[in-house]
Formats: sequence, structure tokens, C-alpha cells
Amino acid sequence: MVGIAVLGAGRIGKIHATNVAGNKHAKLIAVADPYASAAQSLAGALGADAMTDCEAAIDRNDVQAVVIGTPTHTHIGLMLRAVRQGKAVLCEKPIDLDMAKSLAAVEEVERLKGRVMLAFNRRFESTFAAMREAIVAGEIGDVRQVIITSRDPGLAPEDYIEHSGGIFRDMTIHDLDIGRWLLGEEPVELSAVGSRLVDPKLMEKYDDYDTVMLQMKTATGKQCHINNCRATVYGYDQRVEVFGSKGMLLQDNLRPTTIRRWTEASTDAREPLLNFFLERYQQAYKSELDAFVDALVESKPLPTGVQDGLKALRLAECAVESARTGRAVIVE
Amino acid sequence: MVGIAVLGAGRIGKIHATNVAGNKHAKLIAVADPYASAAQSLAGALGADAMTDCEAAIDRNDVQAVVIGTPTHTHIGLMLRAVRQGKAVLCEKPIDLDMAKSLAAVEEVERLKGRVMLAFNRRFESTFAAMREAIVAGEIGDVRQVIITSRDPGLAPEDYIEHSGGIFRDMTIHDLDIGRWLLGEEPVELSAVGSRLVDPKLMEKYDDYDTVMLQMKTATGKQCHINNCRATVYGYDQRVEVFGSKGMLLQDNLRPTTIRRWTEASTDAREPLLNFFLERYQQAYKSELDAFVDALVESKPLPTGVQDGLKALRLAECAVESARTGRAVIVE
Amino acid sequence: MVGIAVLGAGRIGKIHATNVAGNKHAKLIAVADPYASAAQSLAGALGADAMTDCEAAIDRNDVQAVVIGTPTHTHIGLMLRAVRQGKAVLCEKPIDLDMAKSLAAVEEVERLKGRVMLAFNRRFESTFAAMREAIVAGEIGDVRQVIITSRDPGLAPEDYIEHSGGIFRDMTIHDLDIGRWLLGEEPVELSAVGSRLVDPKLMEKYDDYDTVMLQMKTATGKQCHINNCRATVYGYDQRVEVFGSKGMLLQDNLRPTTIRRWTEASTDAREPLLNFFLERYQQAYKSELDAFVDALVESKPLPTGVQDGLKALRLAECAVESARTGRAVIVE
Amino acid sequence: MVGIAVLGAGRIGKIHATNVAGNKHAKLIAVADPYASAAQSLAGALGADAMTDCEAAIDRNDVQAVVIGTPTHTHIGLMLRAVRQGKAVLCEKPIDLDMAKSLAAVEEVERLKGRVMLAFNRRFESTFAAMREAIVAGEIGDVRQVIITSRDPGLAPEDYIEHSGGIFRDMTIHDLDIGRWLLGEEPVELSAVGSRLVDPKLMEKYDDYDTVMLQMKTATGKQCHINNCRATVYGYDQRVEVFGSKGMLLQDNLRPTTIRRWTEASTDAREPLLNFFLERYQQAYKSELDAFVDALVESKPLPTGVQDGLKALRLAECAVESARTGRAVIVE
Repeated sequence: MVGIAVLGAGRIGKIHATNVAGNKHAKLIAVADPYASAAQSLAGALGADAMTDCEAAIDRNDVQAVVIGTPTHTHIGLMLRAVRQGKAVLCEKPIDLDMAKSLAAVEEVERLKGRVMLAFNRRFESTFAAMREAIVAGEIGDVRQVIITSRDPGLAPEDYIEHSGGIFRDMTIHDLDIGRWLLGEEPVELSAVGSRLVDPKLMEKYDDYDTVMLQMKTATGKQCHINNCRATVYGYDQRVEVFGSKGMLLQDNLRPTTIRRWTEASTDAREPLLNFFLERYQQAYKSELDAFVDALVESKPLPTGVQDGLKALRLAECAVESARTGRAVIVE
Repeated sequence: MVGIAVLGAGRIGKIHATNVAGNKHAKLIAVADPYASAAQSLAGALGADAMTDCEAAIDRNDVQAVVIGTPTHTHIGLMLRAVRQGKAVLCEKPIDLDMAKSLAAVEEVERLKGRVMLAFNRRFESTFAAMREAIVAGEIGDVRQVIITSRDPGLAPEDYIEHSGGIFRDMTIHDLDIGRWLLGEEPVELSAVGSRLVDPKLMEKYDDYDTVMLQMKTATGKQCHINNCRATVYGYDQRVEVFGSKGMLLQDNLRPTTIRRWTEASTDAREPLLNFFLERYQQAYKSELDAFVDALVESKPLPTGVQDGLKALRLAECAVESARTGRAVIVE
Repeated sequence: MVGIAVLGAGRIGKIHATNVAGNKHAKLIAVADPYASAAQSLAGALGADAMTDCEAAIDRNDVQAVVIGTPTHTHIGLMLRAVRQGKAVLCEKPIDLDMAKSLAAVEEVERLKGRVMLAFNRRFESTFAAMREAIVAGEIGDVRQVIITSRDPGLAPEDYIEHSGGIFRDMTIHDLDIGRWLLGEEPVELSAVGSRLVDPKLMEKYDDYDTVMLQMKTATGKQCHINNCRATVYGYDQRVEVFGSKGMLLQDNLRPTTIRRWTEASTDAREPLLNFFLERYQQAYKSELDAFVDALVESKPLPTGVQDGLKALRLAECAVESARTGRAVIVE
Repeated sequence: MVGIAVLGAGRIGKIHATNVAGNKHAKLIAVADPYASAAQSLAGALGADAMTDCEAAIDRNDVQAVVIGTPTHTHIGLMLRAVRQGKAVLCEKPIDLDMAKSLAAVEEVERLKGRVMLAFNRRFESTFAAMREAIVAGEIGDVRQVIITSRDPGLAPEDYIEHSGGIFRDMTIHDLDIGRWLLGEEPVELSAVGSRLVDPKLMEKYDDYDTVMLQMKTATGKQCHINNCRATVYGYDQRVEVFGSKGMLLQDNLRPTTIRRWTEASTDAREPLLNFFLERYQQAYKSELDAFVDALVESKPLPTGVQDGLKALRLAECAVESARTGRAVIVE
């Protein structure tokens, strides 16, 4: 049994804590959050200790691993504290919004041979995972083009936008990770465009975009397109297409049921999409936590690492630069 | 070149005449209809002679084949006149609403070795034809169950209902033919239910049903279900499923475009269906006429014959009896 | 908290026990099965007592409700024992294969005002439930026709067939319940056909069928078609269509992912279906157990009762008779 | 009646000539092609004069309009000859592979107020046309992103590649036109990447690409992505997505039938796509010709003009430059 502390009792911490509690090789030792009531409510429901001091939770002897679901600017501090004590970490992305800090943190983690898994949850979703398996198995031959659509159902609140680091670091970063993963190669060139079509004033205020497109190319010429929008009237839209020399794989959205409605106005109509990422990727979060615990219990390599976090962040930085300058950027 | 006269200048005659005119091995000689203006308008547009006397049209020396699209009660008379002169016939179904008359007519046609093709147009529709080909090719192994859905978009006018011979002889007869054809065997037992759900008063007046279901079994145990309704809010619904020992074939409806709409209310919504049989089976009518002409030009057997008309009618009669008596009926 | 004993530690008992253990208003007290090792293994994994005597499990003071997942012939005995002690029951269907015995049991349950829920799990599956809600909400107007397809992936082992009571009582009974439920009215007339197409010798040996169709009509004329087959090469096929005066609802099968494959041979191909009922209805079993516990905790009426079991069984009996005699049967 | 000469008797000329012959307001006067046998065979079948001199065909008094389907380098010469005589022109795209020559030609056409329609056939395809109508009707609110997928079934022969002007001018140009048309605004910035993944040697030889992606932005920030590949194992892939503030429109490919196959290996599998552009856009070519003739007969503006040809070509030029330099290009 792996004793685990979950740091952060917000919506993402709640999911992780529940999944830890449900994993048969893990024991949820503590939930820590400076908001005492949040920590107590979550820990209480799951039979764990409630703490307000995240660092103290890391330091406990009965804790062998921590799950970090706290605000982004605290990730590095908590991650390194755990690594220095030889404890395993599952950390929400990004490592940090600042590239230099992220780089320094990754260097230290690697020097200490720390076991840190970055929480790219989509890789663990059954359809994404099946696509990757099919590609690796050679089912569609050599990958030529990856097309990723990822649109949020509604604009996040202003204070979220303010601290998000911008759409590329906040939203696109998931797709950049999926792009790298499905391409099976590192992008070496990236070109992005950004627009303010949903809420131009708000976007201008934070020098951000709400609607973006980017394209990337690997050294061997494989290509990847990503499109994002911060508001979508028909819901949380998540689709992927991988086109290869021997075929194509398409991934559709999930809906609560399989009902198709036929009326005077239209035929074959399906329901709105599963609402947002917590609902859409519920199974993925569980599989992600299970994969983390499995790797610890069986002493296997963690399925993702700090380098994945770093590379996705670097691509996001290139996108920011490209959208600003109107030039393609070489990824170094 | 086969000289052809089209008898009847109504909506079905119009289709046949246009298709004859477009067939490169056929020449549209005349369009005949007691309504002179209908005959003239259609014949004029297609460069053929307009006639008001159908029998005279059959008798012309430059006519080698006739297409009969006149009211049902005239079918036998015109068909036999043509057969007696050794002329080929493409006749709209049914042969007649009366079984005894139909039987006598078929006997004479067969005695005279007449070349009569019954217009079961669905057999010539590309998807129906491809299903049959796949079955014959053994793609789904032995057929076990055929499920046919066939629903009209809206209730026909009262005078049509009055002379229709009832839903089984008028509407179900198409599905009975398709059922026989896809089963590849003759049904030997049939059981039907009829209800009055769309317009109970009208149906009672003519002792008819507007909503029916039936099931049939062949001697080897293959099964077929048919459901019909005389009014369907979402349009002309035509679907078929064939389930066999090695797989299943499904057939969907046709729509004018492939657009799928996503809105706040629903996702993946398709358009209403192609409106009604003339539109839905436009290509089928053309292929049917082409098959008729091809068989004449190449002296091949006609793809359907009077026996097909007789057998479908007999099954319709059994359905009438079964729905009335509440008993399964042995098909003799 | 409701103390629950699960009777039967086979595959269905395993599901129920796991769901009881996961329900926050229930406590899994005991798992009872004459096969000691099965009881021990399941009870051990879930932290409950293992017992070999089902009756003793019912009698425990800390048990307020029982879930019966034992062989069919034991259902009535265990159900009545629990009812006599005022304990609530969730019982797998059917009540019994014998109509007279079932009737007597139901009478006693009703006389004692016993709280017995029959486990028609499909009613709790999200898509089935959403269809029913849409119908009740009037979304498709008056129901006219219900079409139910339900095919098993592979022939059950011979000893299962032998004790199954025949396809109508064993397999069709689920669809008969769903038919009643979606029609919203009781069928008054039923006509069935049965064939031996998958394994004729085996079916003859047990005077059973492997491929059946039936149609039912309610007093107001609503119609329902059901088709079943005991073996289906492409998997466990579960589809429902409800056609009404204002529209239609279609339900598709479930698959593990949303991937669509495009290759040289075909386009848009989806995966095989979720394998069999335990997998397909996993969520339904959980929702069913939750509904049972909710009704107990909140003292609400149970969502299904013994009358539902009785009525489905009576329809199955009618189907047996109809398939044998070749006549439609009046449901009394 | 409009007298029309079709110039070029190759595969595209054959389509145009057949459509002219089938249009009731047009008369096919002549088919001209330096290959006498091609001209004779086509003209003969359609009852028109065969000529080997395209210029002489233009000059005929009974010719009021010409359809140009000859090799690209002859387009300008023939177009201007017709325009100078006041004759209307339907010209296959591109105007020319050279931008300067195209510009000069367009200037002359405009100076002479010539009536020239560029053959962007996709605009006349029913699904494309319905998408555009829905957008113009405001059905999806403000357009934000257009995603165009367009992949050829197989690599064209080497001599075709050699004279194609490169993938952007030859293949992408169709999508650039559709992009402009669906965006409803002119792109002002474009960024493209090109790869050699299908046949690297051949592509290197002609300094061309076989796999490309590009993205464009309009002045108001609307975005468009296009992806192309010269070889696709599953057929001629043509899909479009338009995402707007109030919804999304998706367009699927066409297949010969609606059959879906279910086997042990997969479910819901559809057929390969309609093979290539002549088959896929057969209806579009007919509607295009009809629109051309309608505009002439009713003296309405032509639905597309030389400026459309010029703008698409300019975007293609920008794509060539961007792919070469790795920079985004401002469209002037």
C-alpha cells in the first residue's frame, strides 16, 4: 500500500483524492489545503486526515507519494520538497508558467533522480489511449497529419483568465502534449495565430487570445494542427484525427447516452456533449491515478515525466511568440 | 432501339416517360392518357406523340414495349392486350387488387409466354441492390432475420385511401416483395396486426389500418418483420436490416446533403429525409427502366415477373386476413 | 445505513455485492453461497461475512434487506422467507419459471405487503431511462410502435440452455418488460415465431428456439416488435426504437471508445460492441442497486415490483404458446 | 437558347459537354480539341460538330459562349479571344500558373467588361452550397474557424505533377477558394508547411510537396486551416467544418450507398468513398454549368469571376512562399 497525501482540496484535488481512496493499492493519508474547511470536508468524506499545511503533509512518515493539485505557482516548491525526501509526485500541469523556473526545477528533479509524473490526463482516457496504441501497432502506417480540435464550453471567469498564463500555456498545452504523443516525434517548427473573437475587451486587457490555431512540423515532416476556442455554444468539444499512410483514426466526443432524436425539424440529432473536462475526463483521471500507483507499486517507470511538462511548455512559449510576431518559430 | 409507349401521364408516368427518353437504347414513341392535356404536356416536353387512347398506343407498329402507369383497375386489360401482341410490358404494381383476377391474368401471361416485368422499383435502388448482392455473395452467411421499416410522410387523400385496396395491398406490398427478395425464400406463415392510430375515423370508414406490423417465417425458419405507418412527422422513413450468421447489413435513409448541425440544443443533427417516394427512389426508377430496356435489347430474362406480383399480393391478402382474425395464416 | 446480505456469489452476485459495498447508504453485511469458497472470496474482498447458508443470512438481525442472485428455482423460497420477516428484497428475474408458482408467490408477497423489487436492470441504464423520460415528457407524442432488438453474442453452454426455461422466459423476458414499460400500456395480444437456426440439434433436444420474433398489441392499438437471437457474430446487440406521433427515438449500442477507423477496405468502422450484459449493463446494475437503496432509505415505493415480474412472465408464456401453436394469443 | 462550344475533349471537357447537352436552355454547338479523334468521339455522341481548332470554334457565329477545359497554359489565350468577341466564358481554374500573366489577363477582362466565370465547381455542390447558405442565413452566428480537409486518393502521374505548378497551385487552390467563400472575408495573413512523405524523391525532383498544411487569418481575426495530401489509402477525402459563435456545421464525404456493415471484426463500417473528383463532384459540375447558363439567359451576374481566380492564385503563391521560407506571409 502506498500512503498518499493530496495537496489542494479544490475541484481537481477532490477528483484525485476520491480516486486515491478508491485505488486498492493506495491509502489516502491526508488532504491538505490552506482553506481548512475545504480540507476537512474532503478528508472527512474519505476517511483521511485534514491538514492546512501542505508541506507538513509531504513530510509525514506515512506519506510515500503526493498528488499536487494546488495553484500553479506553488507546484515547483511542493514538487521539489517531495523529491528531496525521495517521495513520488503526481503533479498537475504546468510545472510553472515561467520557462526558466520550470527548467531549473526539472534540472533539480533529474539530478535528484526524482520520480515526478506530470498529470497529462488525456493520455489515460480510453479513446486517446486506444488511438495511441493503434498508431504504435502500425495500424495506420506512418503518421502524416494530426488534427486536434479542443474548445471550451464557456469563457472562464476573469480572475482565472488573469492568472492562466494565456490560452497557449493554459489550454493549448494539453493539445501540444497530445500532439507530441500522437506524432511520436518532437515538433521542430511551429506557427500560431491568435484572435479575439469571443470577448475582445477582456482578451485585450490581458493581452490574450480566445480563438487560436497553430501548426507544427517534426524533423521528418509530420504535421500537426491544433485549434482552440475559449467558448463554444454546443459544449466541450474534443476531437482528434490521425491520418497515416495506411489509414485514419477519428475520435468523436462523448455524450451521456446514445439516443438519436428524429423530429419534424431534424433527424439523427444527438445530445449536447458531456459538459466539461471533469465530466468528460472523469475516467481518464481515475486511470491516470491508477497508472501512477501501479508504477510505484511495481517499480516501473512513470508513464509521463517532467520532460513532458517542459516540452509542452516550450511549445506553448513558441506559440505565444509566433502569434505575436506573425512568424514561424524554430523550437529549440 | 426499342420503341416504347408510356401509358398514364400522372406523376409515375412522368417519371417513366422521362427515363425512357433518357435511355440510349429506347425511343419514347408515345405518351397516352385519357386526360388529353396531361398527355400533351408530357409528350410535348419529351418530343413524343400524345395520345388519349392507351389501347391504340399499344397497337402501334412502332411500339415494341409499353410501360403501364395507369390506375390499378386498368392494369390487367392493358397488360394482356400488349402480351397478346407479343409486346413487352413494364407494369406498375399491383397487378390488380383482386387475387382471383390477378391469378387468371398471370396464367394467361404465362401461357402466352408474355414478357411482363412488375415494377418493384426498390429492388433497383443502389443500396437495396448492394444489400442483395452482399447477401448473395455470402457476406453475412445465412440470413436469419430481416427487419423492414417503411413509413409514409403523411396520410394520403381520402379518395386515394378509398381505392387503395387497404394498407397491406397498397403500402406493405413493396416491403413484402423486398422481404421475399432479401430472405431468398418464400414465406410460408404470416401474422399481422393492424391499428388505427393516425386517423381512426377515416380508417374505420374504409375498414383499413394506418399502422401495421407483420412477421413472416419461411420453411427453413428465416424470419422477417415489417412495420408501416401512413403518417410520419419526420418524413418518408425507409430502413432495412438483414441479420445473418456472419454479420449484419444496415441501410439508412437518404438526405439531400451530408451536413450535420451542432447547436446549443443538439449535436450531430441531420436534415429531414428526402421527401417521398418519387424523390427517394428517383435513381431507382431510372435503374429499373434501364434494366427493363437492357433485358429487351440483350434478350435476357426480365429481372422481375408476374409471379413476383402475384406472390406479394398473396402475402398482402394473408396479412389482411391475419389482422382481421387475429390468427397466423399459412401462406398457400 | 441499510444492512444488506447478498445471496449468491456467482457473476451476478459479485456485481450486486460490489455495488452494495460502494453505496454510501448501504452496508454489505454478508455474502451467502453454498459454495463456501465463492462466498469467502467475494465477502473477503469486500470486508463482509461469508456464509454458506442463505436462509441464515436472511435471518440475521443486522440484515434489513437481501439481494437474491441465486439459481432461479430458489428465488421464491428465499424471497418469501425475507418478506415474512419484513425484510426488503431485490430479486433477480424471473420469479420462477413456473407461472402457477409465481402467481402464488406474488399473492403471498402482496398479502404480506412485502417490499420486493424485481431486477429489471435495463430500466436503470442511462439511455433506456432517458428514452422513457422523453416519452413520458411527451417528446414524441403518442407512442405508436416500439422495435426492440436484443441478440446475445454467443450460445450459452448446454447446461444453461437446459435450465433456462426456454428463450422466451430466459432472454425475451427482458425485452417484454422493456416493451411494456416503453409502451406505457399492457399488451393484450401477442404472436410469436421461433426458429432453430444457430444450433438446430441442441434446440430440438430441449424443445427450444434460438431465433425468435414476436409482436404485441395493446388495447388502444400500440404495437411492439421484439427480435432475439442466441448467437450474434458481431457481439451483444441491444437496440431500441420508439416511434410516436411527434417523432422517433433511436438507441444505439455501446462500444469501449469512440474511435472510427478508415482503411483501404472501409470507412467509419467502429469497434465491436461491449461484450455481454455484465459489461454492457455495468452502469445499469449500479443504478439499479442505488435505486433500491434510495427507495428503502427514503421510504419511497420500489421502482419495480413483483407484478412486473409476473406480467413479463405471462407474456413469455403467451409467446411460448404462440410459437408452438402458430396462433396469436390473447393475454389474460 | 445559348449556343456553346466546349474547348477540350479530355475528362473534364467530356463532363462539361455532357452537361451542356443536357441543359434545356443551351445547345452544344461544337467540341474542339487538337486531338481529332477525341473531339469526334465526344461531339458525335452528343450530336455536335467536332473541330480541331479551338480558336475557330470560338469564332463561330452560332457560338455565344465557350467552356474552356484545355491545358492550363492555353486558358488565357482562349479566354481573351472569346472576351474580345463579347462571348461569355466558363473557364477551368487556374487562370494561369503565373501570377503576372494572370493579373494582366484579369485586367484586360475587366477593361473589356468580359463575362468570365471561373470553374470553382465545389461551390455548386449541394452540401457546400447548403453550408454557405446556412452561414449567410446566420445559422451559426459569426464564423470563427473553418477547417478544410482535402486529400487525393492517389499520387497523380509524374507528367501531371511536373506541369501542375505545385500542390498549392494545383490542389490547395480549390480549398483556398472554399476558405475565402465560407469565411466571407479575405485572408490577410497566411502560413504554410510542406512535407514530402508520400514520394520524397519525386517531390524533390520537382521541388514540390505531397503533404501540406496552412492556416490563414482575415483582418477581423477569422481563421482557416487547410490540410492536403496527394495520396490517401481510403480514398478521396473531402470534409469541411465551420465553427461559429452560435454553432457548427460539419460536412461528411459521399459514398455510393448508405450500407453499414457489422461483422466479427468491426461494426457500423461504411463503404470506401466515391472515388475521385469527377465522381464526387458529378452533381456539382452539372449545377455549375446550369448556373452559368442561367446567368447568361437571365442576364444575371456570373456566380464567380476572374477576381476569384486571381485571389485564390495569390493565396496559393503566398503558401508557396511561406512553405519555402518558414515565415508567415502577408497577403497583399
